[in-house]
Amino acid sequence: MMLEKGSRLVMIGDSVTDCGRDYNAAPAGWGSYGDGYVSLVNACLTGLAPEQKIMVVNKGVNGDTIRHLKNRWQQDVIDLHPDYLSIMIGINDVWRQFDGELQQLEVVSPQEYEQTYCALLEQTKPLVKNIFILSPFFMELNRNDPMRRRVEEYAEIARKAAKKYQLPYVDVQARIDRYLQSLSYFYISGDRVHPNLPGHMILAKAFLDEIGLEWNQR
Amino acid sequence: MMLEKGSRLVMIGDSVTDCGRDYNAAPAGWGSYGDGYVSLVNACLTGLAPEQKIMVVNKGVNGDTIRHLKNRWQQDVIDLHPDYLSIMIGINDVWRQFDGELQQLEVVSPQEYEQTYCALLEQTKPLVKNIFILSPFFMELNRNDPMRRRVEEYAEIARKAAKKYQLPYVDVQARIDRYLQSLSYFYISGDRVHPNLPGHMILAKAFLDEIGLEWNQR
Amino acid sequence: MMLEKGSRLVMIGDSVTDCGRDYNAAPAGWGSYGDGYVSLVNACLTGLAPEQKIMVVNKGVNGDTIRHLKNRWQQDVIDLHPDYLSIMIGINDVWRQFDGELQQLEVVSPQEYEQTYCALLEQTKPLVKNIFILSPFFMELNRNDPMRRRVEEYAEIARKAAKKYQLPYVDVQARIDRYLQSLSYFYISGDRVHPNLPGHMILAKAFLDEIGLEWNQR
Amino acid sequence: MMLEKGSRLVMIGDSVTDCGRDYNAAPAGWGSYGDGYVSLVNACLTGLAPEQKIMVVNKGVNGDTIRHLKNRWQQDVIDLHPDYLSIMIGINDVWRQFDGELQQLEVVSPQEYEQTYCALLEQTKPLVKNIFILSPFFMELNRNDPMRRRVEEYAEIARKAAKKYQLPYVDVQARIDRYLQSLSYFYISGDRVHPNLPGHMILAKAFLDEIGLEWNQR
Amino acid sequence: MMLEKGSRLVMIGDSVTDCGRDYNAAPAGWGSYGDGYVSLVNACLTGLAPEQKIMVVNKGVNGDTIRHLKNRWQQDVIDLHPDYLSIMIGINDVWRQFDGELQQLEVVSPQEYEQTYCALLEQTKPLVKNIFILSPFFMELNRNDPMRRRVEEYAEIARKAAKKYQLPYVDVQARIDRYLQSLSYFYISGDRVHPNLPGHMILAKAFLDEIGLEWNQR
Amino acid sequence: MMLEKGSRLVMIGDSVTDCGRDYNAAPAGWGSYGDGYVSLVNACLTGLAPEQKIMVVNKGVNGDTIRHLKNRWQQDVIDLHPDYLSIMIGINDVWRQFDGELQQLEVVSPQEYEQTYCALLEQTKPLVKNIFILSPFFMELNRNDPMRRRVEEYAEIARKAAKKYQLPYVDVQARIDRYLQSLSYFYISGDRVHPNLPGHMILAKAFLDEIGLEWNQR
Amino acid sequence: MMLEKGSRLVMIGDSVTDCGRDYNAAPAGWGSYGDGYVSLVNACLTGLAPEQKIMVVNKGVNGDTIRHLKNRWQQDVIDLHPDYLSIMIGINDVWRQFDGELQQLEVVSPQEYEQTYCALLEQTKPLVKNIFILSPFFMELNRNDPMRRRVEEYAEIARKAAKKYQLPYVDVQARIDRYLQSLSYFYISGDRVHPNLPGHMILAKAFLDEIGLEWNQR
Amino acid sequence: MMLEKGSRLVMIGDSVTDCGRDYNAAPAGWGSYGDGYVSLVNACLTGLAPEQKIMVVNKGVNGDTIRHLKNRWQQDVIDLHPDYLSIMIGINDVWRQFDGELQQLEVVSPQEYEQTYCALLEQTKPLVKNIFILSPFFMELNRNDPMRRRVEEYAEIARKAAKKYQLPYVDVQARIDRYLQSLSYFYISGDRVHPNLPGHMILAKAFLDEIGLEWNQR
Repeated sequence: MMLEKGSRLVMIGDSVTDCGRDYNAAPAGWGSYGDGYVSLVNACLTGLAPEQKIMVVNKGVNGDTIRHLKNRWQQDVIDLHPDYLSIMIGINDVWRQFDGELQQLEVVSPQEYEQTYCALLEQTKPLVKNIFILSPFFMELNRNDPMRRRVEEYAEIARKAAKKYQLPYVDVQARIDRYLQSLSYFYISGDRVHPNLPGHMILAKAFLDEIGLEWNQR
Repeated sequence: MMLEKGSRLVMIGDSVTDCGRDYNAAPAGWGSYGDGYVSLVNACLTGLAPEQKIMVVNKGVNGDTIRHLKNRWQQDVIDLHPDYLSIMIGINDVWRQFDGELQQLEVVSPQEYEQTYCALLEQTKPLVKNIFILSPFFMELNRNDPMRRRVEEYAEIARKAAKKYQLPYVDVQARIDRYLQSLSYFYISGDRVHPNLPGHMILAKAFLDEIGLEWNQR
Repeated sequence: MMLEKGSRLVMIGDSVTDCGRDYNAAPAGWGSYGDGYVSLVNACLTGLAPEQKIMVVNKGVNGDTIRHLKNRWQQDVIDLHPDYLSIMIGINDVWRQFDGELQQLEVVSPQEYEQTYCALLEQTKPLVKNIFILSPFFMELNRNDPMRRRVEEYAEIARKAAKKYQLPYVDVQARIDRYLQSLSYFYISGDRVHPNLPGHMILAKAFLDEIGLEWNQR
Repeated sequence: MMLEKGSRLVMIGDSVTDCGRDYNAAPAGWGSYGDGYVSLVNACLTGLAPEQKIMVVNKGVNGDTIRHLKNRWQQDVIDLHPDYLSIMIGINDVWRQFDGELQQLEVVSPQEYEQTYCALLEQTKPLVKNIFILSPFFMELNRNDPMRRRVEEYAEIARKAAKKYQLPYVDVQARIDRYLQSLSYFYISGDRVHPNLPGHMILAKAFLDEIGLEWNQR
Repeated sequence: MMLEKGSRLVMIGDSVTDCGRDYNAAPAGWGSYGDGYVSLVNACLTGLAPEQKIMVVNKGVNGDTIRHLKNRWQQDVIDLHPDYLSIMIGINDVWRQFDGELQQLEVVSPQEYEQTYCALLEQTKPLVKNIFILSPFFMELNRNDPMRRRVEEYAEIARKAAKKYQLPYVDVQARIDRYLQSLSYFYISGDRVHPNLPGHMILAKAFLDEIGLEWNQR
Repeated sequence: MMLEKGSRLVMIGDSVTDCGRDYNAAPAGWGSYGDGYVSLVNACLTGLAPEQKIMVVNKGVNGDTIRHLKNRWQQDVIDLHPDYLSIMIGINDVWRQFDGELQQLEVVSPQEYEQTYCALLEQTKPLVKNIFILSPFFMELNRNDPMRRRVEEYAEIARKAAKKYQLPYVDVQARIDRYLQSLSYFYISGDRVHPNLPGHMILAKAFLDEIGLEWNQR
Repeated sequence: MMLEKGSRLVMIGDSVTDCGRDYNAAPAGWGSYGDGYVSLVNACLTGLAPEQKIMVVNKGVNGDTIRHLKNRWQQDVIDLHPDYLSIMIGINDVWRQFDGELQQLEVVSPQEYEQTYCALLEQTKPLVKNIFILSPFFMELNRNDPMRRRVEEYAEIARKAAKKYQLPYVDVQARIDRYLQSLSYFYISGDRVHPNLPGHMILAKAFLDEIGLEWNQR
Repeated sequence: MMLEKGSRLVMIGDSVTDCGRDYNAAPAGWGSYGDGYVSLVNACLTGLAPEQKIMVVNKGVNGDTIRHLKNRWQQDVIDLHPDYLSIMIGINDVWRQFDGELQQLEVVSPQEYEQTYCALLEQTKPLVKNIFILSPFFMELNRNDPMRRRVEEYAEIARKAAKKYQLPYVDVQARIDRYLQSLSYFYISGDRVHPNLPGHMILAKAFLDEIGLEWNQR
């Protein structure tokens, strides 16, 4: 497995990452994992790869865009001294363009998204052993759907940023699409954005494959 | 994978199986899975093997011994017409011998356990495609611990019953023991009996391996 | 206005109609209206057309298909002796075909939908002054979306039934589509099925237009 | 319609305006509308006139008199940079004269009401596109009722202020009176001051008529 | 005092009498009194006239008309073997004529009110030592108010019934009117029907005067 | 009546006075009265003597001794500018001598009680129209009971202070004793210290008699 | 110790025995003990005399008199086949004579108390190994207090019944009196009837001494 | 008894001591004792040795190690001026070595435990009459169990510290071991660390024996 023994993994993101984690919990302590893919990643690492002794820290916050990540980057990433970092961000950057108009919110443009993303990677890469970029995703197969199109645009920016800094990129959207070939999104989400447990299992599996969990030996 | 497309899997057991499932939920409906290994099995089957379209039904009940299973077998197994059945039972049969003395409870002897188990398998095998016997387990490496010894004795009876009826046997205890080589039980249980999510992941993985989920292709 | 003074209007349907109404409330009593279009229809009739003194009765039930309506038709429609009746049903008949597969539910086929709908109209038309057929709808403009296609198919059946019995048909889908030309569905629904208050206002307006509420004189 | 596309409408007032809005909600965000006429105005504007994209902001506060409005005018009106503003205030200015005597409260005299109202309009008119003055009202037809008399006196002051600054005046009392010709106040209020949903529909309709929502084309 | 030592007083009525009494409480037991005039009557009799040892039983039920009283008369009056009985009924008989129209409720006509009242008195008078008739009331001085007029009409019927059977009649409306000469109804009620504690004190005082509690000697 | 029209009465004390009043309530506002004798005094003054328009303010605080009163005297008495003041204090000064020993609390000696009481009266008498001293009391007839003896000792101090400053003294203990001649304390208190509603009625009656409420004319 | 190994002890009584036990709990199961002396007896027997393996069953019921005990004797004593039985009853038989007068309750006379007590002992003695009679008690040293006198009278009856059937009698009142020589009742009870934990410790100690728990060897 | 009359006993420790005590309670006040051995110690001292008048103060805090004790020593021990002090600490110092690895917590080494313990005793001994050292314990008889071994190691350090400062040492582990000879740990704990009431009785008895409560004379 790619993660070294005894290392610390911080997973940052939005509500897909947060999933009801207790903000008052100690890092990796009771209630700190939430109920989503971070919790499943921790369950697989602890239960199936116990000799690795990986510390998993959930730093997702509901509703966050990359602009919010930037504001809390120092305390939620740098100050925690992670060995590894995963980032899944972008769905709210897009979503607010569809549901934030009546609130007259200032949107996160592709340019802002790209520049902020790159700046954060630039700053953080020297401080950690690796950073995993997870694509934002939308559970809709119709590629002409306006929100799907927009999410893909932002995912593409994330992919390029990963490439630019030679970081692993996890194409979650591709995993979701594969699922959608067989079953409707209704079994994994109520609103095509927030997964339930089976949906989060898809995300966790994608991440665990990327870090090289050897499923058949565990 | 061993389970046929569109088939129905009923998983029966005690509190390790139950895990807070909503008894009023429709089978495979909202809240029907609980928060334990059944929920994880369903998450993996739905999320990672969606084309199989497996219906997963949780029929665990807190506190049950095999004597309780027998009493509800008709309505909770036979009447549901499962294609596949899994059974994990025995920890309470043993536990009550340690914590039921002051209540003067009638214990389930090894003889009663064996006879009831065999009778249920005898009755049910012709009605389903397969039955998976999951061992009861106790999260303690010391094989001289009195409860561990007793649980092993009952697990051995379950193993023999599986063999007698040529049914697959999942040695959950062995998986737990492997985990305990690396980490204390505190990360997967508070009382060495009831797993938390990482503990349930060990159980789910053991079952999914048995039914042949092809991890590397998903 | 088409509704006679002092008449009784029963509005039957599924969760879009129900909207949290208190099942223990007296008809037209406290808490009986729910929070959806029935409540808005009552608010407009009582507040804007008080001299008409229309009694509005909500008989929506969460999760209902036309099969459920049939089962409770006697007590929830016939026994209430309505002067007017509105029916909005079909979304669950379709939805269960997309999210009910893993529960192995028996679907309501187009044939069953049509036959049941016609039988209910046949039975009820002689007993009331008029019946208003409201189309089921799905808040998605992409007409190739599989659920939208299926909903349209059932809406078409409802339209034909209305025509066959010469009953007014309210094309709610068309109103929703008009809205979607200007704004995303996110402002009127979280899941494209259940409207929020602005969404319900579209439904109420469509119904009130059909019964001829004279907006400019009120 | 009188409101320009993409404009921002702030509606300020007392408990009739507030109606349980969440004070922690973002402007025009989840829970920000309350359950009264502001919510209905937003429902009609969003659902029936979506291409207008009006942002509706509720700034009602329970128990407020015009003296309270003055104290929070800067932060609740000026700082929000509204394009349009509606004001409905005065019932508590009057009510406290009837139910505040035992608390020995300092009443808002007609003079204070007039001077404050005019000062606020004077200050704000240059900053916005329009201000809508909504009359306070009391649901009682007997014009000799002491509270009705007093409310009319204050409404008259509001009307004169509107005239003085050439602002549209919405005579809500007249709408209420029209309703009361047909039905008792019991259907729209428990205490003749706080409307229920049908009562709020009367208020919303009066306002929407004033801003020229074209009902028959929507 | 008119009530004999150790006697049992049953006070029957509607919500003005009920006032949140615990229906599961034993007669005169904990929580049985509610928070209204019955509770105050008991407080004065127990606290100020302890040597009389009067048992006070509250049998008010929210929403009741005289038609409801009739239906529960056997179990709530006769079966309790009261020495004394008080009756305060009529406000709902009238109110439903104003707020029950949209529910199409069958009203209690003056004829039904009178006949039922007399029948109950006829049946009960021989079984008890005395019956106190308390007038229904409406907290409104304007005698042309439609509800006030209607309440007076029913109160007049109650007065005549009292006279016919030579029973004491307590004119609660007169006491309320005296209060309203000095202060607005807002200090004793939110809706002119349900008193708060000061309002209930007026009722209790009227009753206690009737039974001859010697205030100055206690 | 002794209290002038439109005057303000502040009633200060301990838990017998407090009785669950809402500390956040405005003086004489909703929830400000609690459920004890203050609430009954207000109910009688408002309901039975409305033309007097007395403002009643509850300033009881659970657990207070005269030492606590002193600490909050400025803000809870002086700053409120009462016309009339009532004080009922002393039971906790005594009680803590019986139940505070294991907590090693510093007791309020008779000397401290007397000096503090006199200092407060000295300071306040010139600022108000009158001060009513209400005796502390204990619901026990046995005058040799150690707590009864001690309460009497403190009551005697209060009586002397009243005499010294020529203030009216209300002997609540005497009223309680009269009640106890007829009935057990169980009907008016659970612990002989905290009255229930009938018990509070005794207190309220004692106070109202002192201020000269003309019972027979109301 | 007097209780044989592995025996079953049923402790029956009123609220002093009940102390919040869960009526749905299995005998000697979770939540079955309540929070009073039964719980402390069980804690001492299980924790300090574990080799005795005594099953302790709480059968107290709030508010019971001996008349209630008689009604549930078959199911709560006989059907449980106790080896040992303890009975503490009588305080409510007395208390209702002091606080039940206004409810006109039928009291349990000394005669009824004695006859019922003896009948129960007569019936039960042959079925069990021993019965422990615990005296009712009242936490008041003044022997002229009317309730103390009455409790003593009933305790005397219990003592005589114990003697008549040669059963051990535990004089709880004497223990309480000894305590009251040193400290006020306030530290062990709020109302002189219901003990808190220190009070229950006195009761438990009295019982455990009677059955001969060897404190110094444990 | 070793404790002098009227003295103050502070009992400090971790969750075994805390047991749900109310942190806002006054020392020795309502709710201040929690539900564990401190509460039982107080119950025995107050109920069985009332003439001693010992004040018992619970200063346990959930999750504390000796490092935490050090941080709050001034305010929770020194500032309270205890006459006697008991300390039970160490289980978390050990436990975190087994369950804190994934959180990467800094463990309390035996050296830190010893040095801190000695420093606290050195500082405090001159200020109090005596200090009772209670051993940490683990409810497991297998002395090769890794956690049992580690707890014994820390208990040994505590024993030596007691010896060094000539303080009484209470060997709680020995008491627990004696219990475990007869019954499984399930009757006194769910997790072998936190006792239930019978388990706490063992602890309380051990402490009370140490301070010389004369059981047979009480």
